[in-house]
Amino acid sequence: MEKSRLRAAILNAANQNAALVVKNANIVNVFTEEIITGDVAVRDGIILGVGSYTGREEIDAKGAYLVPGLIDGHVHIESSMAHPSRFANVILEQGTTTIIADPHEIANVCGADGIQYMLDQTEWLPLSVFFMLPSCVPCTAFETSGAKLTAKDMEQFLHHPRVAGLGEVMDYVATISGDGEMLDKLELFRGRPVDGHAPLLTGDLLNAYCVAGPHTDHECSNYQEVLEKLRSGMRIHLRIGSANRGIEEVMKKIAEHRLPTRRMMFCTDDKHLENIREEGHINYILRRAVANGIPAMQAIQMATINAANTYALKGYGAIAPGYRADMVLFDNLRDFNPVMVISGGNVFHPDTDVLLKPDPKIYNSVHLAPRKPDALELRVCGKTPVIRLVPNELLTELDMLEVPSENGLFTPKDGLVKLAVFERHYASGRVGLGILSGMPIKNGAIATTVAHDSHNLIVAGDNDADMFAAIDALEACGGGYAVVSGGKLLARLPLPVAGLMSDAPLSKILSAQQALLKAAAELGVTTSSDPFITLSFVALPVIPSVRLTDMGVFDVTNMAFIDAKRMETGGNL
Amino acid sequence: MEKSRLRAAILNAANQNAALVVKNANIVNVFTEEIITGDVAVRDGIILGVGSYTGREEIDAKGAYLVPGLIDGHVHIESSMAHPSRFANVILEQGTTTIIADPHEIANVCGADGIQYMLDQTEWLPLSVFFMLPSCVPCTAFETSGAKLTAKDMEQFLHHPRVAGLGEVMDYVATISGDGEMLDKLELFRGRPVDGHAPLLTGDLLNAYCVAGPHTDHECSNYQEVLEKLRSGMRIHLRIGSANRGIEEVMKKIAEHRLPTRRMMFCTDDKHLENIREEGHINYILRRAVANGIPAMQAIQMATINAANTYALKGYGAIAPGYRADMVLFDNLRDFNPVMVISGGNVFHPDTDVLLKPDPKIYNSVHLAPRKPDALELRVCGKTPVIRLVPNELLTELDMLEVPSENGLFTPKDGLVKLAVFERHYASGRVGLGILSGMPIKNGAIATTVAHDSHNLIVAGDNDADMFAAIDALEACGGGYAVVSGGKLLARLPLPVAGLMSDAPLSKILSAQQALLKAAAELGVTTSSDPFITLSFVALPVIPSVRLTDMGVFDVTNMAFIDAKRMETGGNL
Repeated sequence: MEKSRLRAAILNAANQNAALVVKNANIVNVFTEEIITGDVAVRDGIILGVGSYTGREEIDAKGAYLVPGLIDGHVHIESSMAHPSRFANVILEQGTTTIIADPHEIANVCGADGIQYMLDQTEWLPLSVFFMLPSCVPCTAFETSGAKLTAKDMEQFLHHPRVAGLGEVMDYVATISGDGEMLDKLELFRGRPVDGHAPLLTGDLLNAYCVAGPHTDHECSNYQEVLEKLRSGMRIHLRIGSANRGIEEVMKKIAEHRLPTRRMMFCTDDKHLENIREEGHINYILRRAVANGIPAMQAIQMATINAANTYALKGYGAIAPGYRADMVLFDNLRDFNPVMVISGGNVFHPDTDVLLKPDPKIYNSVHLAPRKPDALELRVCGKTPVIRLVPNELLTELDMLEVPSENGLFTPKDGLVKLAVFERHYASGRVGLGILSGMPIKNGAIATTVAHDSHNLIVAGDNDADMFAAIDALEACGGGYAVVSGGKLLARLPLPVAGLMSDAPLSKILSAQQALLKAAAELGVTTSSDPFITLSFVALPVIPSVRLTDMGVFDVTNMAFIDAKRMETGGNL
Repeated sequence: MEKSRLRAAILNAANQNAALVVKNANIVNVFTEEIITGDVAVRDGIILGVGSYTGREEIDAKGAYLVPGLIDGHVHIESSMAHPSRFANVILEQGTTTIIADPHEIANVCGADGIQYMLDQTEWLPLSVFFMLPSCVPCTAFETSGAKLTAKDMEQFLHHPRVAGLGEVMDYVATISGDGEMLDKLELFRGRPVDGHAPLLTGDLLNAYCVAGPHTDHECSNYQEVLEKLRSGMRIHLRIGSANRGIEEVMKKIAEHRLPTRRMMFCTDDKHLENIREEGHINYILRRAVANGIPAMQAIQMATINAANTYALKGYGAIAPGYRADMVLFDNLRDFNPVMVISGGNVFHPDTDVLLKPDPKIYNSVHLAPRKPDALELRVCGKTPVIRLVPNELLTELDMLEVPSENGLFTPKDGLVKLAVFERHYASGRVGLGILSGMPIKNGAIATTVAHDSHNLIVAGDNDADMFAAIDALEACGGGYAVVSGGKLLARLPLPVAGLMSDAPLSKILSAQQALLKAAAELGVTTSSDPFITLSFVALPVIPSVRLTDMGVFDVTNMAFIDAKRMETGGNL
């Protein structure tokens, strides 16, 4: 805040010079754990005080509960596929007024430009967006990402007022073996918040990871893991996104054992728009926490001040003088359905205009080489590796099978489809080819440029012509999702922003998603969960046990390509 | 920590490669609020982990309680009159391993040089010393301090790794009226810790103060004040120094009302060496907190992790992997008498060598003009202002009396002594003269260069010759305390470091203090408390109700000099 604004705020507080007053509220004080009946005075986006006030504009809370604006401690905006500005509106409606975002996905496509884009697009939103700088771009060396982000590349963002720290340190192997590049990044952020990501890490290796620096974890899946990580000094995010619902059992045990919650907070990580609209966002986690026995006051602290403290956000997470006027009115502390949301001193309306700032660098991210006619020819001989999807999981298994072929070339049938990952950042022409089971496709192909974490173009189909047509359809619209059958484009969701996000209104995104699911069903695609999400994770070489990248079929367990020769398919960088 | 050390620490943790192991301890975990039986592994000053370990050196704790090293959240080292290195040894012996120091006193004498001196002298101590940069130098415009410290002057220290934030914002009047120079300092530290100092501030004015930025307070003297300030978002220091013992009643009420303590911590502010050695330091506050009903676990959190969190000290305040190996062994959690203190991985021994780094800029701080023969002549006529000491308080009252005189000049008698403050920073020759009651002195004078907060030379006596002799005695030794009678120097404590601190061993300081008290008694000096401490506060123009500065007799209540003409006594700057 500049000096003149600060002076005005000081004098306004001293003189009870309020603009907006929320009257007759039951105000939740997260510091003293009290509920105080009174008024809250606001001016210029700042809370002036709690007490007895009059103002130009008054809102009668009629005894409803006034809670600090909710904070999502860890989220990837890109996973919503919506532009940040539209994403903001969806979660503001649920009472989330601040998020700690990790632009890991767009950084893997666009590097520093992607981070700058996210900073620019979130500059003037009614949502407060802080960023953790992605620590693992690329995620691994076994695929071609659109960018590499070194400690040196990060320096330009280090002192941005909305950069809060270093993003989730996923590569724990590099971290606990003291890898030089990782240590450079950790050193760059020494003394500042550093997010961890260490599922099931325990004992000496967890100690080594903590010594290295990461001091949060959002991957805990059982109570014992929460307990050990808390003891080790980590702060814990309890996560409920679209997947990963196991945390409710953990909540029960936290309540039962009265485990201190001051170092716990909430996050969604990845949650789809339709899920958010159906059940809620951080307010949903609040509701589940209370339902599972955590006292409402503690749960509210977790949803507000605890996250603000973790990320050193001064002036966020409480209703107190000098704090940002982010507040949510709830009619009870059980359901957490917002009656009204106030962000930066303004009452939020769901039809708030969105702010789009087109940026050509980000809108032009799909760079494919011209396809060679034989680019999809997969030569097989004897037992061939097949990637088998495990129902209801992102996990895959490796099968070694005799597969159908003609003239030595794989011919999709019997539930086996062809899979290809086209490098799409440098137009190198590099293609990784493989075989997928567990996602039958008949007379068609589905494709997407959302392919974690390097976000190359992944396509699956039962014939090369439709696979090529699906690739063409995505190339034409700057990326997204597409379904093709018999040469015809059945459905498409364009995601022109880095090939990851739409700039269209939510209604268009949601109806395109419906159309995609319908088209996939026409091709006979049956998977236990959303086939598009499933496909988006088939290329991620850090989830067991076998993946396809643009470099070939990759054995995650042994950290090696299964057939080194496949790496030579296609061109070179 | 540089990269190679960090890598070594990571690998040592992963491989259980410990140097020192504290075995069989009951380890207090301040995160989970558990006591865990086990071993703590240490190497290169860092905790590697808690579990089951062997090491080159092993200490058998035999079931004693291992607590994180204690933290003093707010202290002025200068008030101990000992060199920082010797002060460190005294408090380390009591289990305090980290302090947040405010070099307000030396900065008022030596400015930025004084701050640099304190940074230099504390660089290699076994005590971790962090600094808050003094925000109020000078304290007021009604006296001549040795330096003025603007926001611009502070910039050079802003990114020093041991500068934690902005020191106590004492001038709350300037703050809540939006004074430009104060706002510049607050802006400079925006987002970082800023200590407050706002005794009894309440309501709208407290709100305005919080909006301005300070977010701690160590001046609370009653429970209601603690509650209101906590609600307003301030973090609270419970202080027990040499004075200010009222906080025990507050502790009782905190326990009774179960007020959440996560935003409370402990501090001493000013505590004399002999008091520390007699009863303890932060461990004494711990003992009193537990005796007054606060659960031991909460009290320990207040003495450790809560303070570390307030000042954003990563790696301090807990026993966990990656934390600095600062630990104290107590045989019970009631008395808190340390059995052993470990600082930075080393067992502390009370006879640890001190580190002195002489600095000529700091050792030569007493600059007096040659005294004019008539410098102490106080012309009186009719009712004259007399500064009356209030027994057992630092407060004073103003009396207007007919005083004894000869030829129009005041002659000390009947319990009235002459008082003078000599400007000692710029050799201006400026002298403020006054009359003091409540400290009878017979046939002599006492003088000191410790005169809060500007630390000019203050002298009191019943005859001019001894007063001049006492001044000479202090000028000769670079400042300190002196007692003179009949032209003879009876006792002297030289404080050559800025005229505030000794560089001598503690035993010498303590024996000189004894000699001073004895000499004062010989002069018939009887005050309710230590006459030297009393004299040191007679010049402080922010404590009611009347003071003497080098500019004259000052009415604190009305913020004005009582006799403007007195300001013209002596020379000009």
